[in-house]
Amino acid sequence: MDTAPQKDLSRFCIHTMTHRQWTLEECARNYAACGAKGITVWRSTLAGLGAAAAGRLVRDLGLSVTSLCRGGFFVADSPLRRKEALDENRRCIDEAAAIGAPHIVLVCGAVPGVGLSEARLQIAEALAAILPHAESSGVRLAVEPLHPMYAGDRSAVNTLGQARAICAEVGSPFVGVALDVYHTWWDERLEREVGECGREGRLFAFHISDWLTPTVDLLEDRGLMGEGCIPIRTIRGWADAAGFGGMIEVEIFSRRLWAADPHEYLERIRSAYLAHA
Amino acid sequence: MDTAPQKDLSRFCIHTMTHRQWTLEECARNYAACGAKGITVWRSTLAGLGAAAAGRLVRDLGLSVTSLCRGGFFVADSPLRRKEALDENRRCIDEAAAIGAPHIVLVCGAVPGVGLSEARLQIAEALAAILPHAESSGVRLAVEPLHPMYAGDRSAVNTLGQARAICAEVGSPFVGVALDVYHTWWDERLEREVGECGREGRLFAFHISDWLTPTVDLLEDRGLMGEGCIPIRTIRGWADAAGFGGMIEVEIFSRRLWAADPHEYLERIRSAYLAHA
Repeated sequence: MDTAPQKDLSRFCIHTMTHRQWTLEECARNYAACGAKGITVWRSTLAGLGAAAAGRLVRDLGLSVTSLCRGGFFVADSPLRRKEALDENRRCIDEAAAIGAPHIVLVCGAVPGVGLSEARLQIAEALAAILPHAESSGVRLAVEPLHPMYAGDRSAVNTLGQARAICAEVGSPFVGVALDVYHTWWDERLEREVGECGREGRLFAFHISDWLTPTVDLLEDRGLMGEGCIPIRTIRGWADAAGFGGMIEVEIFSRRLWAADPHEYLERIRSAYLAHA
Repeated sequence: MDTAPQKDLSRFCIHTMTHRQWTLEECARNYAACGAKGITVWRSTLAGLGAAAAGRLVRDLGLSVTSLCRGGFFVADSPLRRKEALDENRRCIDEAAAIGAPHIVLVCGAVPGVGLSEARLQIAEALAAILPHAESSGVRLAVEPLHPMYAGDRSAVNTLGQARAICAEVGSPFVGVALDVYHTWWDERLEREVGECGREGRLFAFHISDWLTPTVDLLEDRGLMGEGCIPIRTIRGWADAAGFGGMIEVEIFSRRLWAADPHEYLERIRSAYLAHA
């Protein structure tokens, strides 16, 4: 697949968690100075600032809020905990409305002791339960399929096909997917599923990083684009061919890269974005 | 699913790698004393002994050789390396014939820099290339789908559905699958695929261990059956309902458990087998 590289930074977005040592203001100032046009805000960075003020801060620097990360974690082994999760997700939706994010990213949850079939039912029920609040708030719900290595404790939604099926079950234009190449690159059905997702108008977000060999930690050893084996630009081309065209969000969790000089790291991210996104 | 636990040890088999500190003779003596009826031999334990003598040793202790582990690693970025892999697999088939193993387990390979589509083509070609030798040797080829977390560097075959498709492409009763719950438990298509596989006569082997949460190492942090979240007995029930009924092979790689007293660990394996297999 001959997909041309990005010519400019017009779709360049970074997740605040990529620089977890920085405050939201530091992220926003440095990302804007680096040429990014979007920022995906992790909720932990809102503490003490508030979502509305955070939204103004970010916009004043010329950035748009691409997504608010993250809601979900719907699966639980007690009705009380499931209800608490719904309440927490409604607060997340309120924050998204206040910060001006078009959608929230959902890590849907998995819990040892709750079987995957049951977990998947709980997730669909939870999405239906919070949907009215999302619709009335004008905030969309982006289901993120997570790599199967997280099926035990983070998400029972592990392929784009499953995420699409859940979207179809819930059946609202306010429910779609956040597609992350790190979680999905291995899937032989990916190209077809991305195409279907795009044609259905359900591709809400697109996240990039790279898969390292070897990977030494399940959570915090992602690679910078180009360091690993994911055909990032090919997958991005599939998304765009299906009508996506939105922000390309750099989301890297890496103890190794967090330990580097954050400004030099940000420069490397920009270069890697232009070379590989 | 109400699948009854094992009433006895008639299907109890252990992989020598589960006690990697033991020689083949130590494994065979201790496994037989513990009540196992089968042993899956890893090729590294044959050094200095030879496959034919190893087979006699094992059988004299009352054990059958369930599988020889492992062949495969077909994917490479040069024709020479691909040819070397074929030669190595033919030697593996010869060893299986000499030791009296009905099949070899294949970890099919993946290499950073070789795209997954290309890797999957190379795997199907390689299977077709070694098939005549397998057939004339009376040794079957068991393709093992590996967890998607190994798609970067160990296997481009990551679901049972993919393994079945490759079997169908090669199209010989000598080609089937080794189903490992550790690699496949997360897959929502698993029950259906196991059923199809069994009805096609392609379920050659069944491996068990457990998925820990958290998992702290991608290779060497498997759990003992019952320690994790895999519904092992349910999956085994699917296999048996589809006509499997063969050995249930304990295959655990775990730095934590390798560090324990190996005899106490073996007793724990037997108890866990009876409780969870």
